[in-house]
Formats: sequence, structure tokens, C-alpha cells
Amino acid sequence: MSSDRPSSPTVVNQVLLVECPDRRGLVHDITGVLLRHNCNVTSNHEFVEADTNRFFMRTEFSGEVEPSSVLAETRHLLPAGGSAQLAPQRRRRVVVLVSREHHCVADLLVRHAFNEINADVLAVIGNHDALGSLVGKFGVPFHHLSHEGKTREEHEAAVVKLLDALQPEWLVLAKYMRVLSSGFVARYARRVINIHHSFLPAFVGAKPYQQAFRRGVKVIGATAHFVTEQLDEGPIIVQQVIPVDHTHGAAEMAQAGRDVEQVVLARALRLVFEDRVFLSGNRTIIFD
Amino acid sequence: MSSDRPSSPTVVNQVLLVECPDRRGLVHDITGVLLRHNCNVTSNHEFVEADTNRFFMRTEFSGEVEPSSVLAETRHLLPAGGSAQLAPQRRRRVVVLVSREHHCVADLLVRHAFNEINADVLAVIGNHDALGSLVGKFGVPFHHLSHEGKTREEHEAAVVKLLDALQPEWLVLAKYMRVLSSGFVARYARRVINIHHSFLPAFVGAKPYQQAFRRGVKVIGATAHFVTEQLDEGPIIVQQVIPVDHTHGAAEMAQAGRDVEQVVLARALRLVFEDRVFLSGNRTIIFD
Amino acid sequence: MSSDRPSSPTVVNQVLLVECPDRRGLVHDITGVLLRHNCNVTSNHEFVEADTNRFFMRTEFSGEVEPSSVLAETRHLLPAGGSAQLAPQRRRRVVVLVSREHHCVADLLVRHAFNEINADVLAVIGNHDALGSLVGKFGVPFHHLSHEGKTREEHEAAVVKLLDALQPEWLVLAKYMRVLSSGFVARYARRVINIHHSFLPAFVGAKPYQQAFRRGVKVIGATAHFVTEQLDEGPIIVQQVIPVDHTHGAAEMAQAGRDVEQVVLARALRLVFEDRVFLSGNRTIIFD
Amino acid sequence: MSSDRPSSPTVVNQVLLVECPDRRGLVHDITGVLLRHNCNVTSNHEFVEADTNRFFMRTEFSGEVEPSSVLAETRHLLPAGGSAQLAPQRRRRVVVLVSREHHCVADLLVRHAFNEINADVLAVIGNHDALGSLVGKFGVPFHHLSHEGKTREEHEAAVVKLLDALQPEWLVLAKYMRVLSSGFVARYARRVINIHHSFLPAFVGAKPYQQAFRRGVKVIGATAHFVTEQLDEGPIIVQQVIPVDHTHGAAEMAQAGRDVEQVVLARALRLVFEDRVFLSGNRTIIFD
Repeated sequence: MSSDRPSSPTVVNQVLLVECPDRRGLVHDITGVLLRHNCNVTSNHEFVEADTNRFFMRTEFSGEVEPSSVLAETRHLLPAGGSAQLAPQRRRRVVVLVSREHHCVADLLVRHAFNEINADVLAVIGNHDALGSLVGKFGVPFHHLSHEGKTREEHEAAVVKLLDALQPEWLVLAKYMRVLSSGFVARYARRVINIHHSFLPAFVGAKPYQQAFRRGVKVIGATAHFVTEQLDEGPIIVQQVIPVDHTHGAAEMAQAGRDVEQVVLARALRLVFEDRVFLSGNRTIIFD
Repeated sequence: MSSDRPSSPTVVNQVLLVECPDRRGLVHDITGVLLRHNCNVTSNHEFVEADTNRFFMRTEFSGEVEPSSVLAETRHLLPAGGSAQLAPQRRRRVVVLVSREHHCVADLLVRHAFNEINADVLAVIGNHDALGSLVGKFGVPFHHLSHEGKTREEHEAAVVKLLDALQPEWLVLAKYMRVLSSGFVARYARRVINIHHSFLPAFVGAKPYQQAFRRGVKVIGATAHFVTEQLDEGPIIVQQVIPVDHTHGAAEMAQAGRDVEQVVLARALRLVFEDRVFLSGNRTIIFD
Repeated sequence: MSSDRPSSPTVVNQVLLVECPDRRGLVHDITGVLLRHNCNVTSNHEFVEADTNRFFMRTEFSGEVEPSSVLAETRHLLPAGGSAQLAPQRRRRVVVLVSREHHCVADLLVRHAFNEINADVLAVIGNHDALGSLVGKFGVPFHHLSHEGKTREEHEAAVVKLLDALQPEWLVLAKYMRVLSSGFVARYARRVINIHHSFLPAFVGAKPYQQAFRRGVKVIGATAHFVTEQLDEGPIIVQQVIPVDHTHGAAEMAQAGRDVEQVVLARALRLVFEDRVFLSGNRTIIFD
Repeated sequence: MSSDRPSSPTVVNQVLLVECPDRRGLVHDITGVLLRHNCNVTSNHEFVEADTNRFFMRTEFSGEVEPSSVLAETRHLLPAGGSAQLAPQRRRRVVVLVSREHHCVADLLVRHAFNEINADVLAVIGNHDALGSLVGKFGVPFHHLSHEGKTREEHEAAVVKLLDALQPEWLVLAKYMRVLSSGFVARYARRVINIHHSFLPAFVGAKPYQQAFRRGVKVIGATAHFVTEQLDEGPIIVQQVIPVDHTHGAAEMAQAGRDVEQVVLARALRLVFEDRVFLSGNRTIIFD
């Protein structure tokens, strides 16, 4: 279906991303750089995080610029510990990891096929082969890397070898049910996005719907977050919930949860792939 | 303002409440009792909880009946371990406990003044006196029972003495910031309703908004629940959430949380005071 | 992918559907029929609509029964103007009509492929051919019946001819952008489900997102409803909304709207295909 | 209760409000003015409305400034048709109009009493006297100006006379059930905030809950908006909805609606009284 895909409509402008310790006059100074380059700012977001006194800025602008000189001039303005970058003007390179559940990856494949996300899905890797048929329909390569008969290290080594060949910028865990080693996470630090089947931090760990049922909650949710070495404790990107009641057993809660997982992951990927998400320690700043 | 209050409009019919181990034919048999008494069923809810195989039924009906004979005939039908009762046809007797935050008790006093809840607020007890002026405006007695200079036992003894005189059916903790002893909870088992300032079971314990801010959540919530000896672990009645983002510090999260706390507690009290809530272990069955 | 589809898990029991003018004792009498046939009621919903005094009941039960005798005995109990039926114990036969937008039909095809809905999609008919490739991936027949160069009558005649061959029970308009003639609607009365791209009754008619943008609304929604001869005025099955703000132009509102349309249609189809929806005049009664 | 009210915590900084036709460099130039005055920008929002090419900016800053020179320098920068102002550093002066329903004004009085809104409620005016007792409890003057036996003009003349004496900046219609004349609206153009008991533009006009019931909607809502001469068509500030189902008659819908009305109005007033709302034709731009 790739021939159906026009060029991405979502980010037509350049995007400048800045973060640094706050000081007076940053917005004035940074917009001054763009003005001197005859750029037209079309959208601008800034935020100063109170407890860290850190400044974050995302600016979309149009106009022909020499990226290296815009960056050099901007960086020159920033206090020590700051960074500035221009988002690449092409789709993000993404690999998706799955196990047996289809709903998140199916939604992602449909959005990809109709060019609704700013990403190229280079491949889907499954530790089961259940979803190979689905992925194949959409013309995306599927790699079955079974974990059976392998240690965690052996299995991850096989995944890493494939990722080294594909060179993705982002990994998406679309209901990938394997715990990642800290070594693996460190290798892709801040570049792995997971959909967790609960409203974190409630019900960390295994079988969250079973936990939710036993606790008798009246709302269940889903959380898209970056993966860090602390399982289920990485920075949260998107959370959403739906009401449940006593007629929902654990299976019905899981069923209800799937729809919200799909929506939450889609929204998180849009935000990340459009460079709208900054990380600050264990929190995210999101300019939408 | 009590002279403004007409008789309660919310529950004009009789309400029969049944729970027992499930067996075939219970709905047929119980509706048969009401039919023989020439009652007209106006609303009927049943539920069988799968993992306990327990049957719950709430039936509203109109018609003149002799309560004791309806109950006797119904109880005769039930398997061992069952119970049947008719809800009292008068407002519930309620005492509210508060500390310094006004929003939940203010909302409750307004609803009470305009007869929107099926309850008489007999008194408000505060361990601080900050809310005495507010409560007094609504013609409800306020009792300041300070905890200062007292052990927990001494303070609770003073509260219990007052409650013994007032004889409430329900205690409402409307942002009451004292931990109750297990002895106190046992005395009012299944009769204490609390509003907790988080989406339980996330952020149990102290300073939940501070915890939520540090965790960087994108949604905060409130939980109304029955109080049990395990702090924050009693059966949940109502939960609701609102979105937050990186611009919310802990104080802004608390501010946002107050509005949802108020709504959640109001809804929980309506459900409880209209006999719509059954308890099953640590879960609730709610017929609304 | 059809070989992957196990038999439907969603409705394993028999479902008895009753509606009639209300009278005292109906629940008792109808449950008596099932009891005499040694059935076990696993779920039961009743409702009496106040302004019409009409009784509706949906009962799931297990047990081997002779359907014709259960129905005969039940119908014998009902006042004049009542009806009783047993839901067919097989998937519903469904045809989907589309134009150019993919999101609703793609979601439906994924759910169908993974057996999440109680329906067989017999075919997809498009007045454009844009979605033929997508539908083909899922092994579902796609029929391109162009409206170009045809009168409405001629085009509908071609659709009807195909439908006569396929014999569906339900038609789903998944963003089908043609107005149906009253003759067509009458032929499939109460059997056509549409997803409308607004929160009806706001913004009936054409270009609802353009209307919503001009009106400056802060919430947009989607409505799944049965189609009647009054365009956009048929009985509503499901409605849901999402917040928008001043940064959303008409195009961004449409984009935001697509996600909620998809969710709303999926939920409506689940309810209809599981026989949870009764019609009463221009309203629906939904037992979920 | 006024002695309990500390000075407002909500707006401690100065707020600069700018709108004008867009041109390149506005953010740079305006922040330059503040920088030259040694101000520290603590929060900054800008938006360019695409279809009107109009620029809106709200900047909070700290620092001692001479307001007239900041304004003069800013205005000097703006294209023709622009405006700049500094928000007054005191609570807004507000008069509330009511009829018989208490819930919105009660919520407002509680928030006022506990200093949760950036406003002084100068008086409440009722065309009925039903709420005088409630208002009196909170130490706010209540004026009963009955419409009975008066023409609309006569009644409005009495209201205007009182308003002329009170000199409010904002009028809040908290379930005020009288239609205002265009003359009255013109006199307080852009300064009257209404809570409408529906999700506008659905169900404009009288008895919206009766309309909603007849239409069989599954969601009801509330809309806070500025009042213009076209009834129910002024710029929308806040909208929110809640789900309903077939068990809700018109009365139950109204009951459910009251809670959402109260929340929606409270949120709209917070936004307006903190100078977060710009008007652009019939739409609002809201910086929150």
C-alpha cells in the first residue's frame, strides 16, 4: 500500500527545539535569531518548570534557512547545560515489537498505511508469530524472533542484531509482553515507547486487569510512557480512562481496556513523532 | 433553612433488598411474593457475581404492604446465608466529619438545604474549628472536637460519645484528615464513607497530589469508598478523573482535584442513601 | 484471514427479547416460562418506559429448550401489541457501505478479522473505489458501484440488486457520504446504522466540522444512529465527545472527530449485533 | 464571611493582553519591551488565528513597571487595529442574576466566600425571591426585582438602575430565566456570561431537557457563553457533557444536567476573571 502514501502532511514547517536553564530574555533572544533569518514563526510554545527552573521551547517556523547557522546562533545564546536542535524534516524511522495481541499494532498499521502518522514503520518484530499474517497484509516486514528455548540475553541479542541493521529512531512496544533487560533499555535510552494496560501507577506489574477486578475499581485506564530501567516507572506521555462497573469481570475489563490502549498509544505516537514531547527527569512536558 | 425542605422526592416507593447464594428461579420466586401482595414492581435490578455465585437484587415497588409478612415470605425463599430487608422510608441519619477543607462539606450542605439528598445531616464534627462559620450558616450543628493535646484514643472517645448521642446510620468523612483507629472503624463497620484525593489504588497514603506531581501523571482522580481497617483499601463506590498536564504543579493538581472530589462524593452519597449499593467482600455492586 | 476466526465468544447463551404494553406480573410470568423449561437465567434486564407505559425485557439463559414452545408460551402471556423472539444463535449478516474515508471500515475489518464482533461482513460496497485495496487485504469482497453518471434511483437500484443477492440483516454506513432515498430507507427500515460526524442534533446536514468550527464549539462528538426517512433524525444508539479548542481549525476538528467516530461506531455495532438495543419510537432502550 | 477572605492568590503577576493583525516579529518585539523594563516573563501564550490572520498574546510577568510606559511602547509596535492593555490588579467586580434555581449561584457563593475566584460579588439580583435566604447566609446583598406586573422594558429599567449604582465589570446569569432585550445586551456588550442548560448549538431555545429527552440523546451537556443579541449564539467559553441513557426522563436529565452546569460555569468564570479569554468574532481564544 506504500504507493498510496503521499508525503507527510503533519509537519510542513521546520521545528526548533530548545531546552536550557532559565534566564531572563530567552524568548526574545531566540525569536530574534529566527527573525534575523527572515523566518516566520507559525507556532510557539514555551514553559519554565518551576522546581527545576528549566526552560523548554518548541517553535515552528517557515522560511528558507541554513540549519547549521540557526543552530549555532541559538546555541550561542543558551546558558551552559542547554541544547538546541532542529527536528529532521522526514518521517521518523520506527520498529514495532509485538507479542500476540493485535489491536495496537493493527491500529498503527492502518494509520501508517493511510499516512496519518509522521513515521515509517520499518518492521514489526514478534516473539510469537500470531500477527505475521496481519502485518503482511500491510506490506510491512514481519520478523518472528521466538524467545522459546532462549535465555533473555540470547533473545535480546537476536532483536538487537536486527535493530542494528534497521537503525530505527524509535521502538514501539505495542503489547510486547517480554520484560526488557536494563542493558537493552540503556541501549535505546529515551527511545522506547510502551503502552501499559493500566492507569499507572496503579497496578504496576503483571496481570493488571486481574488486579483491577479484585480491587473493584470503577475506572480503568491505559498509560503510554517511555521505558526506563525501572519497570513501569518511566515518564508518562498520555493517560486515559474508561468507566467500568460490577458487571465487568477481569476479562471484560481487559476487553474494555483494549479500546483505550489503542487510542492512548496512537495519541502518544503522534505527539512523539511530531517532536512535541520533552523529557524532564521522570516527567514529560508536552506542547500540543 | 429547614423550613424550606419539602419531604424527600427521591424515594417514593418501597425498596426491597435481597442477597443470597444463587439458585435457579430466584427472580421468579421473589417477584411472586410481591405479586401476591398486589404490589407493582416499578424498577428491578438483579446481578449474580460470577466468582462468588452470589445473587443480589434491588426491587422498587408501589402498593400497600405489611412489611413483616413480605419480608417473612421472601426470607423463607432464600438459601441459607441470604438476607432480605426493606429500606426505611425516611431520610438517612448522617453525621459528617471534617478538618479544614470546605469544598466537600459545603456542597453537601447546599444539597441538604435544598433537599437534593435522601439524608438528614444531624451534625458536622470538626477536629479544627475552621468550618464552624460555614456550617452554622446552614443551621446545622457544628461540634469542634479538637485533637490537640489528646491521644488518638482520647480524641476518638470524644467523637464516639457524641455519635452515641446522635445515633447516625452513616458517617461521611468529608476531607477528614485524621487516620481512624481500627477500633473506631470496627464500631461503624460498613457505615463510614470517605472521599480520597486520588484515583485509588494509585497514591495511597499521605500527600497524594505531591506524589502525583512527582510521578508526572496526566490524569488525576478521586475515589469515594467505604472505610475498612486497611487504610485506603475499602470497597470503592465512585471514581472519576480529570486530565492534568505539565503546567500543573502539586498545588494546581490539588486545586483541580477538589472539584472532582466534590462531584465524586456527592454521587457516592446519592447512591448509598438511596440503597443502591451492595457490598460483596471488597467490591461494590451498584444498581443505578 | 477467515480461517483464523473461531466461533463467536460473545453470545454463548440464548437471548429472549420481549416488548409489550406493561402489566403487573410480567417479569414473574416470563421467568416462569423459562423455569418450567429448566432454563437458568444468567442475565436479565427489564425497563418500563414511563411516557408510553411499554415494557421491554432482554433475558439471557442457558439450557436446552425447544424454541418454538418457549416462544409460544411467552407470547401467550403478553398483552395485545406485544412481541417475543429468540435471537438467532449465529453471527449477524452485515454489508458495509463506504465512500472514501477509511477509518471506520478499517476498524470494523480488524475487529471482524479477529472475531471481536458478532457479525459476518458479507461485503463492502463503495461508491468510490478508494478503499478496495484495504478491504481486499482482509479477504472481504469489495464492490465498486460508482454513482457517477447515474441518477440517485439508478445508483440505488444497483445497490439494492446486490443487497438482494447478499441478504444482509444489517447495513452499516461507515462514512457513506450519499443521501439515501426514502424508498431505500423504507426497504431496510430499522436495519441501517449510520455514523454521523457530529454530536446530533447539533450540526445536522452537510459539513458539520465546518459548522462546528464557525460556531466555536469546545467539544465535538459523533453519533451512531439508525437511519430513518428524516435525515439525521433516527434513533440514537451511541454518542461520545472529545474536547477541542481554538487551535483546532475545521480540518483539525475533522481529524479529531475521526477517532471518536471510529470508537462510537464500534460500540454501537457491538450493542446492535448482541441484540442489546430496542427501538421505541425515535428513542432506543439499551441493555448493556 | 468577608473577614475570612485573604487577598486573591490567583493572579499575583501583571498580565499584558495584546491583540492585533499578525506581522512577523511580534513576539520578539513585545518581549523586548518587557525586557527593557527589566520584567521577568513567567508565562506566555500566543496564537495566530488562521482565517482572520489575527494575533493574540497573553503574557504574565513580574517586576516593577510604569504601566503607562509599557502600554505606550507596546501600542507603538502594533499594526493598526491592534490593542494592548494591562489587566487590573484587583478582583473583578461582579453582579449575579438569578431566578429560582440555586445550584450555580450556591457554588459561586461558596467559591467567593473561600476566595477561590478572582472576583468580588457585589450583589445578587433575583426576579424571584426564592434565593434571598441562601444569598443572605453568605453576607452578599440580595435584591429582589420582580418582573411581575411589569413589561420587559420596565423590569430591565429597574435592573439597569441598580447596575448603574453598582458598576460591575461582569454580569453572570446563573440560571436567570428571563430573555434579555437587545438594548440590555448592547449596554453590557461582551460583559454578560450565561450558563445554558444544553450542549449548544443543540437544543437552543426553551425546555432543552425536554427536547433532549424527546430526541433520545445519550449525552447531555452545558455551555457557558457570552451573551449576544442572538439568543444562545454568543461566543462559547466552556462546554462539558455527561452520559445519560433511556432510564433518564426529562426530569432526570435536568437533574444530571445541574451538576455539569455548575462545573462548567465555575470553570468559565475562573477563565474570564483571570483574563484568559479573548474574543474573536463569535469565537473565543482561551489561554489556560
